[in-house]
Amino acid sequence: MAQTNEDRFGLPEVDHQLIEDIEDLVSKKEMGMVLNIVLDLHYADLAMLIERLEKEEAQQLFDWLPPNQRADVLLELDYPLRTVLLDEMETSEIVEMVDEMDTDDAADVLSELSDELTEEVLTSLEDAEEVRGLLQFGEDSAGRLMATELVSAPQHWTVGEATEEVRRLAEEVEPIYLVYVLDDEGILQGLVTLKQLLLNPAQTTLKAIMETEIISVQPEMDQEEAARIMEKYDLTVLPVVDANGKLIGRITIDDVVDVIREEAEEDLQRLSGISFGDEEIGDSVLAVSRGRLPWLLFGLTGSLISAFVIGNFTAILEQVVILAMFIPVIGSTAGNVGVQCAAIAVQGIASGDIWASDILKRLLKEISVAFINAIALAMVIGCVMLVLKLSGWGEMAGADLLRLFETVGISLLTCILMAASIGSGAPLLLHRHGIDPAKATGPFVTTSNDIIGVMIYFSIAQFMYFR
Amino acid sequence: MAQTNEDRFGLPEVDHQLIEDIEDLVSKKEMGMVLNIVLDLHYADLAMLIERLEKEEAQQLFDWLPPNQRADVLLELDYPLRTVLLDEMETSEIVEMVDEMDTDDAADVLSELSDELTEEVLTSLEDAEEVRGLLQFGEDSAGRLMATELVSAPQHWTVGEATEEVRRLAEEVEPIYLVYVLDDEGILQGLVTLKQLLLNPAQTTLKAIMETEIISVQPEMDQEEAARIMEKYDLTVLPVVDANGKLIGRITIDDVVDVIREEAEEDLQRLSGISFGDEEIGDSVLAVSRGRLPWLLFGLTGSLISAFVIGNFTAILEQVVILAMFIPVIGSTAGNVGVQCAAIAVQGIASGDIWASDILKRLLKEISVAFINAIALAMVIGCVMLVLKLSGWGEMAGADLLRLFETVGISLLTCILMAASIGSGAPLLLHRHGIDPAKATGPFVTTSNDIIGVMIYFSIAQFMYFR
Repeated sequence: MAQTNEDRFGLPEVDHQLIEDIEDLVSKKEMGMVLNIVLDLHYADLAMLIERLEKEEAQQLFDWLPPNQRADVLLELDYPLRTVLLDEMETSEIVEMVDEMDTDDAADVLSELSDELTEEVLTSLEDAEEVRGLLQFGEDSAGRLMATELVSAPQHWTVGEATEEVRRLAEEVEPIYLVYVLDDEGILQGLVTLKQLLLNPAQTTLKAIMETEIISVQPEMDQEEAARIMEKYDLTVLPVVDANGKLIGRITIDDVVDVIREEAEEDLQRLSGISFGDEEIGDSVLAVSRGRLPWLLFGLTGSLISAFVIGNFTAILEQVVILAMFIPVIGSTAGNVGVQCAAIAVQGIASGDIWASDILKRLLKEISVAFINAIALAMVIGCVMLVLKLSGWGEMAGADLLRLFETVGISLLTCILMAASIGSGAPLLLHRHGIDPAKATGPFVTTSNDIIGVMIYFSIAQFMYFR
Repeated sequence: MAQTNEDRFGLPEVDHQLIEDIEDLVSKKEMGMVLNIVLDLHYADLAMLIERLEKEEAQQLFDWLPPNQRADVLLELDYPLRTVLLDEMETSEIVEMVDEMDTDDAADVLSELSDELTEEVLTSLEDAEEVRGLLQFGEDSAGRLMATELVSAPQHWTVGEATEEVRRLAEEVEPIYLVYVLDDEGILQGLVTLKQLLLNPAQTTLKAIMETEIISVQPEMDQEEAARIMEKYDLTVLPVVDANGKLIGRITIDDVVDVIREEAEEDLQRLSGISFGDEEIGDSVLAVSRGRLPWLLFGLTGSLISAFVIGNFTAILEQVVILAMFIPVIGSTAGNVGVQCAAIAVQGIASGDIWASDILKRLLKEISVAFINAIALAMVIGCVMLVLKLSGWGEMAGADLLRLFETVGISLLTCILMAASIGSGAPLLLHRHGIDPAKATGPFVTTSNDIIGVMIYFSIAQFMYFR
């Protein structure tokens, strides 16, 4: 990726050749030469390079990096490798590295360590108190996404004083887009952008120029919701306040972009039947297998139930064996319709476009769509049967094609309507009961459609052939 | 959404009550009262409100809004409604509204109009030349994402002069995070952030303080790739340069966040078998049906092929009717495994974690995972058969349970390995041939697994029962 028409002023590129060269140099312990090359890389590229090295070489190279580079690189690495590297480090090395990080990143890394190790690191950390505070918040809360590094100023300060404050904190707070304006109790009252600091005379008070229509969130809010708010209102930073309105941190857009990407990947994995939705490319075979097996077993149980449903109809199958031909037609069509409906419902709920109260409206619409498509599909099957009849295949196979068409057509119509209702209704019901629909919808919809599909098909067949 | 613990200083909230009230007031033509309420709303909330009104009320309310509000709101609206509202507007109204927009947004809106209307609007537009330039770039290119509004300065300028330039353009360019530094030919040489302008003495030259390690892109690059670059390098703005390195625009993070979200939604829809991956909640029943039908027909064709495969084995089915029971087990398990593998492969390719050259490594890993899971599932089936045998069900149904288990077990193992190979191999092969794997993978994998599944199952059954 990204090799085509991207310009990099002075930034070398990571490709297969570079990876091979580094791999070779690292195994020959050529530390000087390796550092010479990799310290010119952007830390995101360096992380990508390390992800692609063999485990031993990755550890060796990471070990050679200076603490500030280690901090930047570690934060870019995905989970399995990140834990491997952390496990190899001395406590003092971890402290030195974490001290280079912003408080939100520090909390992120510490939350992956054992409780004792976290305590050990915290006792030696510069920002121990802030990081400890962040670790109090739940793993997926806005509080864990926020950094405590920010620039704030009392409302009576002037533009000149605020500029001085930006200067003082320039090193520590990165990036700075604006200054938060607080009252004497630390309650957030407004914000002043750097642009306004540049544009206004030094003696103007902040109170006179501050923007007071601010959107803020509380630290307990779910990260995905905080991300959605920043996305919706096109925000680059979002202040976090406690229940009293006191400013306690800020969330920056780069962290939120990661949340959006991770959320989307998780939803896709969950809908595709990967049980926990956090499979990483670097995970071991056993870890991947463990993540995928639960829903496969659930699906197997469902299809075994379908098997027993069919088992109950062996009498009819023995007489009209041709009915077996259409088991995949019914099953896969119902499955496809169900998945389409479920995907749209899950997506609409996640984006806030579908509200819990919309359930009847949604069902009506989905059933209308399903009805149109079912008629179209039934017509295709009708045409196929007609061709078969004209070609004499029916007589050859001893099949009553008209009755077969009636059976398959009516079953298909019924199954599609049912699949659409389950596919769009299930996520909305889950959502209404406070369950994230992305977590359970996918395999549930496919499996229940499978079972109900064969039930409907054979019940209708029973009626059509033995009424 | 977002009603729980979000703080809004002075921003009213959009809920069912407000929507009903507005609907009522609009239908009574109470323009003054309506504007009184809605002009206090953030434009993103106002857009959400309009999306939820009936079509007539939505048009009426939009019609009442002043041009600058219209511009903000229109850009937040989703497609079907956006087009409906644009269709109702006079050319002069469109010009007035588009003049309020940044060039990138203006190009976005004009691209939705007919060619004649676009020409008409362009002749009266203030930034006609810039917008016309943007319209030259392909719909999904970085060039269409960029705005031409930015602050740039020659390298010999001082901090004081650059600050003056920021002041001059403050109204027009929003937001301003940095100043691009150019040489005499307009070639991008570096950048200076507003923070640096605040921190450095007024007489310092930009050349002395500018950052020269810059990442930039060319306008022909795909939007998704530009988004990935901003995400990877944690950028808030990304400069766009032409083939000679001349600065022509900038992409801001808020637009990229939308690209990331849309890309994720599109991938999810495509993998779920929605043919074009751009279904919106507001689309009409017919539009939705049209988007979903193609892959349903494709899937139906696939399952009809499966039906004929089974039709070729009616001789064996007539004798061992119990084989029909396991058609859903084979089909759905192979389907589930295929979808899991395909989802991970598509995702890894999209995020750049899987490279085209990784194909053999990926296949080996996926087949290992599949093998472990296949053994686990076969053991479950073995246990079920054992219980059936002990309960005497086998004799009752006249089935040779051991032979049935051998047949189903071997078929399941074979089908799962095959499904894993197709599920993970197909996206990589498509990617290698320059086709976006998200576009074709989903239904192709499910359908081919269906067909090959029944083929393998009945071939193995034929061998086991009639060797």
